[in-house]
Amino acid sequence: MVLKDSSFIKACYGKNEDRIPVWIMRQAGRYLPEYREVRKEVSFMELCKTPELIAKVVKQPIDRFSLDAAILFSDILTMLEPMGAEISFPEGGPKIAHPIATPEDVDRLHPCDVNKLPYVFDGIRHIKKVLPNTPLIGFAGSPFTLACYLIEGQGSKNFDKAKAFLHRYPDAARKLITLLADSVSAYLSEQVKAGVDAVQLFDSWGGILSREDYRTYSAEPATRIFNSLKNTNVPRIFFVNNLSPYIDIVRDVPCEVVGVDYRMDLQKAMAELPDKAVQGNLDPSVLFGSPAHVREATQSLLKTLSNHDRLIFNLGHGIQPKTPIESVAAMIDAVKQFR
Amino acid sequence: MVLKDSSFIKACYGKNEDRIPVWIMRQAGRYLPEYREVRKEVSFMELCKTPELIAKVVKQPIDRFSLDAAILFSDILTMLEPMGAEISFPEGGPKIAHPIATPEDVDRLHPCDVNKLPYVFDGIRHIKKVLPNTPLIGFAGSPFTLACYLIEGQGSKNFDKAKAFLHRYPDAARKLITLLADSVSAYLSEQVKAGVDAVQLFDSWGGILSREDYRTYSAEPATRIFNSLKNTNVPRIFFVNNLSPYIDIVRDVPCEVVGVDYRMDLQKAMAELPDKAVQGNLDPSVLFGSPAHVREATQSLLKTLSNHDRLIFNLGHGIQPKTPIESVAAMIDAVKQFR
Repeated sequence: MVLKDSSFIKACYGKNEDRIPVWIMRQAGRYLPEYREVRKEVSFMELCKTPELIAKVVKQPIDRFSLDAAILFSDILTMLEPMGAEISFPEGGPKIAHPIATPEDVDRLHPCDVNKLPYVFDGIRHIKKVLPNTPLIGFAGSPFTLACYLIEGQGSKNFDKAKAFLHRYPDAARKLITLLADSVSAYLSEQVKAGVDAVQLFDSWGGILSREDYRTYSAEPATRIFNSLKNTNVPRIFFVNNLSPYIDIVRDVPCEVVGVDYRMDLQKAMAELPDKAVQGNLDPSVLFGSPAHVREATQSLLKTLSNHDRLIFNLGHGIQPKTPIESVAAMIDAVKQFR
Repeated sequence: MVLKDSSFIKACYGKNEDRIPVWIMRQAGRYLPEYREVRKEVSFMELCKTPELIAKVVKQPIDRFSLDAAILFSDILTMLEPMGAEISFPEGGPKIAHPIATPEDVDRLHPCDVNKLPYVFDGIRHIKKVLPNTPLIGFAGSPFTLACYLIEGQGSKNFDKAKAFLHRYPDAARKLITLLADSVSAYLSEQVKAGVDAVQLFDSWGGILSREDYRTYSAEPATRIFNSLKNTNVPRIFFVNNLSPYIDIVRDVPCEVVGVDYRMDLQKAMAELPDKAVQGNLDPSVLFGSPAHVREATQSLLKTLSNHDRLIFNLGHGIQPKTPIESVAAMIDAVKQFR
């Protein structure tokens, strides 16, 4: 099969006439027993740095569920290492040593040297070998999301320090965001060269910004990144966690697909983004219900939509580690059976 | 002055012709040096349980900034103690012993006996003595927000366990939410009897729900609570942290005022809630900029609004502990000077 003719790629361009394609954010992950087996042997960081293992875990959910797209296995923070950040992944979540606290700390960082991330691009080439017929999505974190971790030094409820930094040091904040945007551009461009068929920018934390800050620190850098990828001719997906307050701003971001979080009415998102495909948006917590409950929720969601040619089904956020497998299967089955 | 004629109360009913009233969520708190002085002597819990000290800290921001409303000092979780929960407030945030994990755990709880919260109502009477001319706002947490803590046992990034519980045990979840709604009703009604001039329901965590769950677990119990308070004749304020995805649902909740978080376009909220007053919504992180920056941001926000007779100025979320005092003063001054 030519990948351009896959339902996933066609849906990205709003031209899918086959059944609705489906994949799951964090589909290669801890909810899968076969993934947990791999992780018994290696740490998260070792896994991210071993191309053969990357390909192995990327293939696991495809083998189990025949999903319509695969996604690179990596962490959004790995690209910060060649920028000068020191990252570790202990049990409680990622840590960055010496978080950014002042404008001078921003000057310590340098543009991402993609040559220092060979394991990512080798990983992509390995995946393409073992999954030649499945569209592969590359990805990166949005500049603001990366900045959140660089400033906070770790995960946080509201990234208050990061938000305060934007207002305390607006010039340094813009400098940091631009540096990150150009690094993300280089990183995604190299992923395309290595063979990915689409790219997704994860704006996981833009949804904690005011509209004005969203424009400056999320939409503008996303526009810069997506413009730089225009000539790669792969579809560009922008996942916005908490899209609703900013949807009119996102409408102008140059991308083919908008990933919609589980809070927003998906039909409304489709109506307000007439020129884009949408991806989403079942609430991951629904999967903690029975398979019958999951099937019904999936069908109800699909029934609310007036057109399906520009829809990629997904959860509205990453799948949770303790999600029961049988509910995942019920959801995928309901999408595949939907007419 | 008759409190009914205060700009705050008039604005609640959309009939304010004076200058725009202003108060700040968490205005009695750690950003104030005089509050930190009090906290050197007593723990948070002791403070919450000592009526004289409650009145003292409630009065502090009014004395310093001449704000247009005072708010009871308490914690949303204190009302869970007389329901059978064991709560503590160590440094890292509140903890609840024996979190709810099964439907049987829900049955361990009982309706809130408001007689076991004398310090709250005595606190209100003390406040009215020392601040007879300032409208006083009573408050409670929304049932879903309280359920989040009861299930998770502590604060959390996304309250994934709480969300999973709704889908795993929908009957127990509804039972828990109804029990909490009736307890909140009794608690707020008693606050009105003790003398508060308005009530605010803090839906701090409803904004992590899908629309369907928001309807069931946030809007329906809020409606139940506000209906029970209808005859108290005090204005009812519903603060929704992340209003945008649910605004059409919130429109039908019976309350006089909707508190709008900092993410949503405030003019849009006013337009979509034509029969309600709105309260909000400057981003608290703006206050980390210079006083000039704060003044400009406050004025710009006010200039976007087409009518001011149903506006109560506030931040779009609680003020942060490290906020510089001079920026708070600049914001309040900009609101008071605005014509």
